[in-house]
Amino acid sequence: MSNTQHLTIGSPKPVFPDDGILKLYSMRFCPYAHRVHLVLDAKKIPYHAIYINLRDKPEWFSLVSSSTKVPALELVKEQGNPVLIESLIICDYLDEKYPEVPLYPKDLLKKAQEKILIERFGQFINAFYYLLLHDNPEQLVDTDHYAGLVVYEEELKRRCTKFFGGDSPGMLDYMMWPWCERFDSLKYTFEQKFELSPERFPTLIKWRDLMIQDHAVKCFYLDGQTHAKYMNSRRSGQADYNMLYNEAKRVKLG
Amino acid sequence: MSNTQHLTIGSPKPVFPDDGILKLYSMRFCPYAHRVHLVLDAKKIPYHAIYINLRDKPEWFSLVSSSTKVPALELVKEQGNPVLIESLIICDYLDEKYPEVPLYPKDLLKKAQEKILIERFGQFINAFYYLLLHDNPEQLVDTDHYAGLVVYEEELKRRCTKFFGGDSPGMLDYMMWPWCERFDSLKYTFEQKFELSPERFPTLIKWRDLMIQDHAVKCFYLDGQTHAKYMNSRRSGQADYNMLYNEAKRVKLG
Repeated sequence: MSNTQHLTIGSPKPVFPDDGILKLYSMRFCPYAHRVHLVLDAKKIPYHAIYINLRDKPEWFSLVSSSTKVPALELVKEQGNPVLIESLIICDYLDEKYPEVPLYPKDLLKKAQEKILIERFGQFINAFYYLLLHDNPEQLVDTDHYAGLVVYEEELKRRCTKFFGGDSPGMLDYMMWPWCERFDSLKYTFEQKFELSPERFPTLIKWRDLMIQDHAVKCFYLDGQTHAKYMNSRRSGQADYNMLYNEAKRVKLG
Repeated sequence: MSNTQHLTIGSPKPVFPDDGILKLYSMRFCPYAHRVHLVLDAKKIPYHAIYINLRDKPEWFSLVSSSTKVPALELVKEQGNPVLIESLIICDYLDEKYPEVPLYPKDLLKKAQEKILIERFGQFINAFYYLLLHDNPEQLVDTDHYAGLVVYEEELKRRCTKFFGGDSPGMLDYMMWPWCERFDSLKYTFEQKFELSPERFPTLIKWRDLMIQDHAVKCFYLDGQTHAKYMNSRRSGQADYNMLYNEAKRVKLG
């Protein structure tokens, strides 16, 4: 975890060998950046991760990516070191560019249907943030649908496969996962018991337990308590980007 | 224009011959649906257009598309008549499924960059709606950037091509066009003079004039005054979906 220091105002731009390896600008707790880590790890594409303090960004970051957003993927092998932004666009690019472990169905209709389900998951994402920012748990658990999560329960049950992608996770699994991983943190933040009901979500609960064992998910996994700790720092207005880095340092020194 | 009657509560579901032709559920003035019309027409894919009154939708529409949104594309040749939603997902599907007139660059990096520019155009779309709903022209023309339109001026100038797609319009051209066509309506709705300044936007002005001559654009084109008439009806809370249909009927009867 010692590599998760977030660069900030005054931090020099990190220098890497001229090794042609992709550079991913990220933030350790950003779920959108998490998506790109998952796809890179699922496809076993090597990359350098560079973590950015999003409150006080290093001066040079606006020269790397004019949007100054993360995730941003720098394609160091391409002329002019172009930078891609937007998690879904980056992930779709990686899937086409590195087709060895395909994450979408080959069938074009099924692929489009997968993209619709990814898009629709935005409803859950919005409800998730609304909850974190407004302390309104009703928004998320309204009518026991968990903001549309029931659609995914039904869909996976219908497919009768371990993952949405079949025997292994596909693009939909990975695009949903960052928020599903963080779902487990809510019980540490709110008094209300945030647990998926085993009666209502038996398929998604099995899916979650399988996802946690997936190689790519393991590579970037944090438990609910750790996510809660970061989220609480963010809710207090002082997002503690270097939480993991500082903890690792303390352990090392201790 | 007699085919632009919008089906509503009580309208029977239209019956088409079993001809395998795509069915596009649309609304004549919806810019997102407009995108799909453009791509279908650019690729010369035949389709049946079915216009939906979005305020009072026909009862059967929720059975066609559970989202009850337009655009919705029914793939009548596929088993179970699946329906795709979301303009960008539909357009990307059509581009892959009907590759004869490719609308994206072949190069995967350039394709991803085109998608980023399509995504980024959302800023302009948001400002456009903000203006229409809040009567706040400053939002759109702020700092003379026209809500990010200057990015597209610079980009097209840099490319030195007629269209973003090169010698003919590509996906970016068509995904931007519905709002660019409607831009010309603002001068009829607001007192402030909404014109692209020839000093600041010479490239986009040339582009607009070329786009208007494109076959696919012509197929679905409405002039600024007509768009303004519809928009005013929408702003008054009584969107006049059948405006064109009723006008055509009056002309016929007259």
